[in-house]
This record gives sequence, structure tokens and C-alpha cells, in this order.
Amino acid sequence: MDGACCQQLDDLDYQILSILFNDSRTPFLEIARQCHVSGGTIHVRMKKMEELGIIKGTKLIVDNSKLGYDICCFIGVKLDSTLDSSTIQESLSRINEVVELHYTTGEYSFFVKVLCKNVSHLQYILMRKIQLINGVQSTNTFISLSKPIDRNIELEKMY
Amino acid sequence: MDGACCQQLDDLDYQILSILFNDSRTPFLEIARQCHVSGGTIHVRMKKMEELGIIKGTKLIVDNSKLGYDICCFIGVKLDSTLDSSTIQESLSRINEVVELHYTTGEYSFFVKVLCKNVSHLQYILMRKIQLINGVQSTNTFISLSKPIDRNIELEKMY
Amino acid sequence: MDGACCQQLDDLDYQILSILFNDSRTPFLEIARQCHVSGGTIHVRMKKMEELGIIKGTKLIVDNSKLGYDICCFIGVKLDSTLDSSTIQESLSRINEVVELHYTTGEYSFFVKVLCKNVSHLQYILMRKIQLINGVQSTNTFISLSKPIDRNIELEKMY
Amino acid sequence: MDGACCQQLDDLDYQILSILFNDSRTPFLEIARQCHVSGGTIHVRMKKMEELGIIKGTKLIVDNSKLGYDICCFIGVKLDSTLDSSTIQESLSRINEVVELHYTTGEYSFFVKVLCKNVSHLQYILMRKIQLINGVQSTNTFISLSKPIDRNIELEKMY
Amino acid sequence: MDGACCQQLDDLDYQILSILFNDSRTPFLEIARQCHVSGGTIHVRMKKMEELGIIKGTKLIVDNSKLGYDICCFIGVKLDSTLDSSTIQESLSRINEVVELHYTTGEYSFFVKVLCKNVSHLQYILMRKIQLINGVQSTNTFISLSKPIDRNIELEKMY
Amino acid sequence: MDGACCQQLDDLDYQILSILFNDSRTPFLEIARQCHVSGGTIHVRMKKMEELGIIKGTKLIVDNSKLGYDICCFIGVKLDSTLDSSTIQESLSRINEVVELHYTTGEYSFFVKVLCKNVSHLQYILMRKIQLINGVQSTNTFISLSKPIDRNIELEKMY
Amino acid sequence: MDGACCQQLDDLDYQILSILFNDSRTPFLEIARQCHVSGGTIHVRMKKMEELGIIKGTKLIVDNSKLGYDICCFIGVKLDSTLDSSTIQESLSRINEVVELHYTTGEYSFFVKVLCKNVSHLQYILMRKIQLINGVQSTNTFISLSKPIDRNIELEKMY
Amino acid sequence: MDGACCQQLDDLDYQILSILFNDSRTPFLEIARQCHVSGGTIHVRMKKMEELGIIKGTKLIVDNSKLGYDICCFIGVKLDSTLDSSTIQESLSRINEVVELHYTTGEYSFFVKVLCKNVSHLQYILMRKIQLINGVQSTNTFISLSKPIDRNIELEKMY
Repeated sequence: MDGACCQQLDDLDYQILSILFNDSRTPFLEIARQCHVSGGTIHVRMKKMEELGIIKGTKLIVDNSKLGYDICCFIGVKLDSTLDSSTIQESLSRINEVVELHYTTGEYSFFVKVLCKNVSHLQYILMRKIQLINGVQSTNTFISLSKPIDRNIELEKMY
Repeated sequence: MDGACCQQLDDLDYQILSILFNDSRTPFLEIARQCHVSGGTIHVRMKKMEELGIIKGTKLIVDNSKLGYDICCFIGVKLDSTLDSSTIQESLSRINEVVELHYTTGEYSFFVKVLCKNVSHLQYILMRKIQLINGVQSTNTFISLSKPIDRNIELEKMY
Repeated sequence: MDGACCQQLDDLDYQILSILFNDSRTPFLEIARQCHVSGGTIHVRMKKMEELGIIKGTKLIVDNSKLGYDICCFIGVKLDSTLDSSTIQESLSRINEVVELHYTTGEYSFFVKVLCKNVSHLQYILMRKIQLINGVQSTNTFISLSKPIDRNIELEKMY
Repeated sequence: MDGACCQQLDDLDYQILSILFNDSRTPFLEIARQCHVSGGTIHVRMKKMEELGIIKGTKLIVDNSKLGYDICCFIGVKLDSTLDSSTIQESLSRINEVVELHYTTGEYSFFVKVLCKNVSHLQYILMRKIQLINGVQSTNTFISLSKPIDRNIELEKMY
Repeated sequence: MDGACCQQLDDLDYQILSILFNDSRTPFLEIARQCHVSGGTIHVRMKKMEELGIIKGTKLIVDNSKLGYDICCFIGVKLDSTLDSSTIQESLSRINEVVELHYTTGEYSFFVKVLCKNVSHLQYILMRKIQLINGVQSTNTFISLSKPIDRNIELEKMY
Repeated sequence: MDGACCQQLDDLDYQILSILFNDSRTPFLEIARQCHVSGGTIHVRMKKMEELGIIKGTKLIVDNSKLGYDICCFIGVKLDSTLDSSTIQESLSRINEVVELHYTTGEYSFFVKVLCKNVSHLQYILMRKIQLINGVQSTNTFISLSKPIDRNIELEKMY
Repeated sequence: MDGACCQQLDDLDYQILSILFNDSRTPFLEIARQCHVSGGTIHVRMKKMEELGIIKGTKLIVDNSKLGYDICCFIGVKLDSTLDSSTIQESLSRINEVVELHYTTGEYSFFVKVLCKNVSHLQYILMRKIQLINGVQSTNTFISLSKPIDRNIELEKMY
Repeated sequence: MDGACCQQLDDLDYQILSILFNDSRTPFLEIARQCHVSGGTIHVRMKKMEELGIIKGTKLIVDNSKLGYDICCFIGVKLDSTLDSSTIQESLSRINEVVELHYTTGEYSFFVKVLCKNVSHLQYILMRKIQLINGVQSTNTFISLSKPIDRNIELEKMY
């Protein structure tokens, strides 16, 4: 399945997505009640959207600094010319502190989002983990000072 | 409440977080079963972690490109010297396509994550929305080519 | 008309485009002969592709250095925060030496391709024309030393 | 033949070029009519300008986004110190999506103009094609958001 | 007194400086003993070097992270064109967290060394203190991950 | 001992630090007099703070330009991908002119503070010392034009 | 007189230039002897080349560091958008330490070559002279560590 | 002889330098007349200043563009980590178009000033000469658009 599949979605699908965007823990029966359809219908639609690869799962949102992870940063990574991206991706995947990886256009080959407890933890991740990966040439660290917006795309805009 | 509160968490709290990190839709009774405690205990612990501000909510994970949003990008924004961050934050908040905002150290004042349907949509957001905000001096756009890692911090590391 | 319209094209349309990509001066009767259809069919197809906005015209390819224009350069332009792109576009349009204008992502607001006779001509265009446009903050000039590739996208890839 | 040959052109040559700059498909007889000379004269002059290397051909101008190529970008490429430009040029020439190649002064060794259908196509060209060419050290991608000016140098300026 | 005054120093002065470089708390009598001169001589030499402006004082070296200041960083600051350095210097001087200020050549107007307790403290200093100083255009923050060398110039090299 | 130990300090400790921040040569008996405690108490507290690693020593502050070292600069160093930081640190440690070394986030792997007598001395340190260290890729030198602020963190802020 | 006038020069002119490139103090009679022509001929040719603007004068080459000017640097200057280059040029011309001024393409509006006695002199020129010129936005200083090549273009290449 | 020797110069020496700075071809007898001393004295002083290495020669100032060298540029060169500056210097010295070489602090290892006849000559120097030197990693070219100031340091400032 390649490319957009928004043609295969109708208003009910969008309504379901919209409810789950507000609270992904909403029970199916409650979704059904709000949409004036049966719970079974919700199950069918959810299954369709999961099979189409539209819905990929749910994620608990936590305040990482309250869990002792004081530093959240984006690390822009430049690679050597002999880039073997799949090996590098595996190495990054084995670092627990790496929570996002984006291949990007621009001056960096990719951005990784990393959570650390403090500055010496960050030093350890940078100098003993990321910079030792074969193919990594240099890194640039952008500390996230605060994150006042973190949300899904507004669904009303889509239908 | 300021700073880390991981001292106030015990093993059971971490176990609950860990289960919800894997699947934030897990019913409380199922969590209780896995932790060998009563459902009421789970409720008490969840309430405590919400009151401490540790758990902030849940988020549905979708494949935005399948919803017709082909372009996901990070936009580094530089501000003028006369920076009034709260006004700028409000203006950004009113742009539906902006899904994350991070104040950052480094050459940019902040990073915004933006979802767009295609290149002309991106042009519209950049030139008619973000660059017209008072105080925005210049922008640099990093297109996310793919996002092979997107996960929570591994909880096993924390206790 | 917004977005791709490649769904409305068939093999004959692609064959016509392909012949014109090789030589845009090919007479319609010759195109008809190569495609084993009548000249009228070619006219109908050309008109359709012009109405769809696919075919926008033709361009004579000349060696500008042989016409006395020794310097071809890309100028990356950064704008002030108070960007009024339509006024700037008009001002640039009035400079005869500007032959292309691209709004771009990245560190520059736009790229202009400029042809000049020599270094003092370039100085004149930069310092007396482009840098005096209201809203232009700074420019960076990339001289094109040579242009070994200049062609249309290969149409075989499209059908 | 090296350098400018504008000394060898007269007003009639410039008039012919000017007509073809407006519409490269203008028939020779029509050009002759506008210039008040015979069609044979036009043929002679065209042949001269082709032999001098001034006229190099014609190009069909199409709206690539309407052909399904949503993304047009300039990619600045930095090379390793051991640069063998002719081999790199050959490799780039074999990538159909590369439509222009400019060796440039400035921070990049060259600029390539690339057409892609969407973001994953761009990722494929960047990571599986360009960045795997031996000698390519890093790339920076500037997406063209729109191209409001695309024209030949104004010939009135030349005589 | 302008410029170097090393011509006015003899071997004894250098020996005294060398001893104090190792331990600035060494009592004068102990210095006298090591130099085989009287305590009065040491007093005379110290007074001379203080009057020449060579010795400017002493500084306690502490581990700031152990005092709760987890983050030590260098902040490169760019100023607006209308730079009034004395006013800016005063404003910076009033920020307790600023422990060093260097006017520098290069892309930054000056570097400040800043100590912060954590990331939100750093955000406060950057966004509520430094970036609000009139004339400050932008800042770039380099976190010091560790400081394995911190010493005086080796005096043996000087005589 | 890892992390902050400011919980183990009381008001008397802070008072002692504050006095030594003003003048690290203050005799213990004078500190005792100011704090209204016995000299033995000061000894006990100093020993505790030294054992906790809070107090690491003292440093003579000199005007290096008066000692003939006209140039003080920060050198940002970028390393190759195959970074062996401990070997590099040793090599830097053997260069007497290097007085500080900071591993940093941002575009440089580390900053070194270097003192030189004049421009040819700086050339010698850069080209014959630092750039010859295995693993050093490039350097960027920021000359300190003047240093109007150089002080400890204000202790009043800490208790 | 605009553009190259090398067509108006013959072998004798080049020979004269070549002799003067080696030693601009060579007496006319000695030049005449070497060229096997009369002294009057040399006078005629010199006058022609001066009138054509080819020969603009002579310059004494001194070792500035031996005259007490220890620091020679290139300062890249970026201007504000409202650039009035003639006023800025006048202001720079009044600074005795400025010995060259080049308008340039690239990230700087111009380069100035400046000679200073020491670091505090450089600070004075930067902060009290150049940065106070109206329109100057920022400066970047490149210290010349040594200048092993300084010569005229080799004339043998020209005829 | 190392360092400044301005202490060894008196007013007469400065007067001689000042006259030669204005016109390096002034005959010794004319200098003597202006200084109210004998020609022999001028000879003695010139010899002294040449032996001290203060006067290094004279240079004919020509308008290179009038000699057919339309392009004057500064090329910033970055070297590989394994930098052998003496070999590189030799290679650069063999390129006739290189007229100045400065080792510099900042982002470039050195600046070379290069004169070229036109853009294809510049391409040849960059791609076939400078970039093929072993150890050269990348280059950045700043074209000098014009050079309104080119003079010696004003000697009045020195005595």
C-alpha cells in the first residue's frame, strides 16, 4: 500500500479519528454512542483503518522531566560519505535514550530526539554512544528548553 | 511542583507505566492482572501519577502520509531581537498544521514540527502563515524523509 | 485545476511529450507519422495538454556566454522579517538579467538565476539592483562554472 | 571556438533570436515575414548561429507538478577531497530525475536540480542514488516552493 | 600602564608566581623558604607585581555541579548593528549566573559563560534575561559537557 | 559521589564559601572570626567540602597580557568521525599554552582556551601543535578582545 | 575606457611590465637597455600604459609586523538591508588602519584588510570604529597568521 | 631578528618611509632634498631598513582587469586533518594565477587571492589545479566586485 488512502475514508472514519485524537483511551462503546452507530461498526472501522496502516497504535504522554529525564534534545547528525543507513539505524535503535529518528533534508543526515537525565548523561550518550557509531562524522545538539505545543493535526481540516 | 518526582514512585508505578508505554489502551483490569494487584490499586496509582503531572494523557499514533499529509517537516525559526515569545506562541498555536513547538538552544529560537499535504501547502504555511508572524526573521525547513524510530524512553532503564 | 493530472493522460499523450522533449520544433505531421495517428489527433491532444496546463510553451536553448553573457549565477536572497513577497517579485521581474526566480525552503528566501556580461555588470546588478529592493537583507552568489547537464525529466519513467 | 562571438552577429540575427525567445515554435516563413527578409535568409542565419554554438536547441516547457512530479529541488552537493568530477558527472547523468547540473563556486561543489514525485521518491533519490555516488560527502536540499519567473535574457538589452 | 611588563620581572618573581600557580594559598613564609629569601622580600615582590597589575587576585575553584549548578555553558551572542557595548556589559553584569564575558572576533560579538541549575533555569536566563537585553539579536548555546583541563599557563615556559 | 550535594551543606558552609569567593587567601582564623565560630570548626567544614569534592583548590588570577601573553583565544575544534577523546585529551594536555578544555555540544567537539605571546606564536600552536593531533579535522579561532567579567557564581543566590 | 585593453599592448609593453613586476624601481634607461630600445621609447610606452589605466602606480612592500603592526586581518562585514555603499566606503576610508576594501560576492558584503598593533588595538578598531559605522550589521575577523606568497600575476602567461 | 624593531627607527626613517609610501619610485636625491639631508644619508637609512627586513621591495600596481584578468577572487580553502602545509604551499606557489596566500584563523585554513581571465579560467584553476592538491578538502570563492581602497598604513600614525 503506497501513498495517501484518504479517498477510502468517509465522514464516520474521520469522526472516529477525531474522538480518538482528543482521548485515545475512549472506549469503543462511548465512541459508538457519540457517532450514533453500533459498537460493532466502530470495531469494523477501527480494523479497516488499522489494516490500511492509518492507525498505528497509541502512545502514553508523560512529563519526562518529572521521571528524572531533565534534558530533551534534538541531535542533528552528519554522516560520512560511505553511508550505510540501515546499519546506523540499527545502532541508534539499540540506544534506549533515542526516542525518535528522522532522516532529513538539509545540513544534517538525520535528527534524533534523545532524553537524558543530566549533562553527564548527555555527554555519555554523545561521546560513548552516538559518536562511536561507524559512519557518524559530527553532531550538533539542540536542547529543547520547553515544548508548549504537542498535538495531532486538527482533523476538522481534513474533511 | 517543580523538578523530578521519581523519588515518589515505586516499582508498581514503573510497572504500570511500562505496560501503558507498550499499549496505552490496556484496560485497568488487565494492568491489575499483570501486576497481581486489584483494579482499585491501579486506579489509585494512575490518579497519583496524573496529579503529580507525570501522566499527561494519551495520543493516537497515525500515519499522516496515509491521511494525505505527505510532508512532515521541522522548521527552525529565528526571531528578531525584540522577541515576545508568548505572542508568537499564540500565533503558532492558531496554525492547525503546527503539531509541535520546541524552544531550543542553538542557532534557532525554536523548532516547529509542521504537517502539510504537498509543496504548495508548505509554501502557504511558510509564506502566508509563519513568516508573517510579527518577530519572525527567517526560517529553515528540514523535511523529514522518513521516521524509522518513534517510541517512549525504555522504562527498564529507570528502576 | 489543482494537483497532478497524470491520470488523464494516456500512452499517446506521453509519446507526444516524449517526441517534443527531444525536439520541441518537430512539426505536428511528423509527430503524427511517428505515432501512427492523424495530424488532427495530435492537434486535439496538444490542445488538451495545453488546457490542462501541462504544456506551458517552448524555450530556445542558447549558449549565453557566446552572446557575451560570461557569468551565470544563482543568488540566494535572505529577506527581512517584514516580507511582502509580491512586491519583491515585481521588482525582480523588472530586472532583465533575472531569468529564474524560485521561492525555496532552507536558509534563503529565494534563489534567482542571473546572467551578467562580466564582473562589473554583476556588481551593478547586485549593488544597484537587487540589494536596493526593499526587504532584501543579504545575498549570497554562487557562480555557475559550467552546466554539463540541462534536460527534461525522462518520460519513459512516467508511463 | 572560445569566448563571446557577439561581434559576429548583426541586428537581423538578434531579431531572429528575439522572435524565437518569445515562441521557439515560430515557423521560419513567419520569422522571415516579420523581419522583411526571405525564408532562405532565415535558414542561413539559423545555420550560422547553430554552427557558432549560439543556438543549442529547443526545450518544451511543462508543468512538472501536473505530470505527477510534485517536488522540484536544488541539491547542493559537497565532495570529498579526492574529487574526480568526470566520474561523478557520469553517475549523476544516469539518474533520470536529475535535470540540471551546475558546477559552482561557494560552499557546494555543484548544484543539481532534481524532480521527484513525492517525499519518499526524494528520499530514494537522495539516499539510494546521490549519496551513494563515490566522492559525495554531504548534500543540502532546497525545495522550490514555486517558480514565478522562468525566461530567457531580454534580447533588447543586447544590441 | 599599557602592554607587557615582563621585562621588569626577574627569576625570583617568576619563581613566586610559579609557586602560587600551584597553590595560591601558600603562606608567604613558605614561599620565602622555598626561594631561599626572607619573607619581607616576598612581600616586596608581591606588592610590585600587584602594583604592575600582573597579580589581580585569587579565585576559589569549586565543582559547580556539586553546588547544584548542573549546566555550565558558553553562549555566543550576536548584537544588532546599533551596538552600545557598555550598556550591554552592565546588563550582563547584573545577571548573577553570568560568570565570564569575553568580547570576541568571529561570528559572535561576545561569549558569556553561564552557570544554571537545570534546563528550565537555562531557559529563564536565555529568554527572560539575555535575549531581552536591548541590542541582543540572537544567541547560540554551547553546553560544556565536561572540563578535563583548567589550569594556568606553565610558568617554566616564560623564563 | 555523583550529582549535587547541596543538601549536605548548611548556612555556615555557604558563608565560608562566600568569604573565600571574595578572597581565597583569607586565613582560617579570620574566616572563623567573621562567622563567630572557632577556627577548628572552619577546618572541619573545609575538610568536609574538600572531601565532597565541592572545593577543588585555588587559582591565582593574573593579567596574562602583562606577562607577555598578548593573545587569549577560544579554539573550537572539530574531530574526525573516529574520535578517541582520551588520546586527544592527553595530546592537548601536553601543550602548555592550553589552559582550558571543554567538551561541548554544538558544532564543535570541544573548545580549548589558549594563551599566546603574539600572532606567530598562535600560528605555531595552531599549525604545529593542535592541527597535527591525530583526529583533529578543523579549527576555528575566536580571539578574546577583552574580558570585562570573570567571577564566581554569586553565593547569595544559593541559600 | 571600459573592459580589457590587452589588444592594444604588444610584446615590448609586456616586456616592460615584466621588468617592473620584478623591480618597480628599475630606472627607465636600464629598462631600455634590457629591451634594446631607446629610453624615449620606454617613456612613450609607460605614458600609454598609464593613460590606458593599466599602470596605476607603485607600492613599497614593508614587513608591517616589524613596524609594530603585529596583527594583519581580513574582516568580513555584513551590512543592513538599507545599504548605502558610498557612505560606508567614505567612513572606512577615514580609518587609517584599513588598507584594502573589496566588495565581494558570498556571505559578506565586503572584506577589509586591517593592520593593528596588538589585540587591544584590534578591539578598538572593531568596536569603536567599524561596528559603529551606520549600516554595519556584523563582522567576522580572519587573522592572517603568515603570508608566504605575495606577488604579481606572472606576465609570461600573458603573451 | 624576531618581533617589532620600531624602537630602532627615528623620525628620519619614518619620513623616508612616508615619502616612499606615496611614490615608491621617488629618486633618493629627491628624498634627500625633502628631508634636508644628503643623498648618502638616505642610502644608509634605506640599507638599514632593508637589513632589518622592514623594507622588502616594491610592487607595480596595475589594473588587472585591463590586462585581461577580469576576475579577482579570494578563495577560502579548508584542509583535511592530515595537513602538510609546506607541501601545499609549494603546490600553490606553482600556480601562476595565485598572487597571495594567507594562513588564517577562522573557518578556512588559508585564503588565496587568484586572478583569472574569465569564468572558465576560474573553473580550470578551481577544479584542475587547487582542488586536486592533496589535502585540499573544499573551497569557497569570494569574487572581488571592486577594490575601492588599496593603500599602505598611514605612517603619520606611527611616530
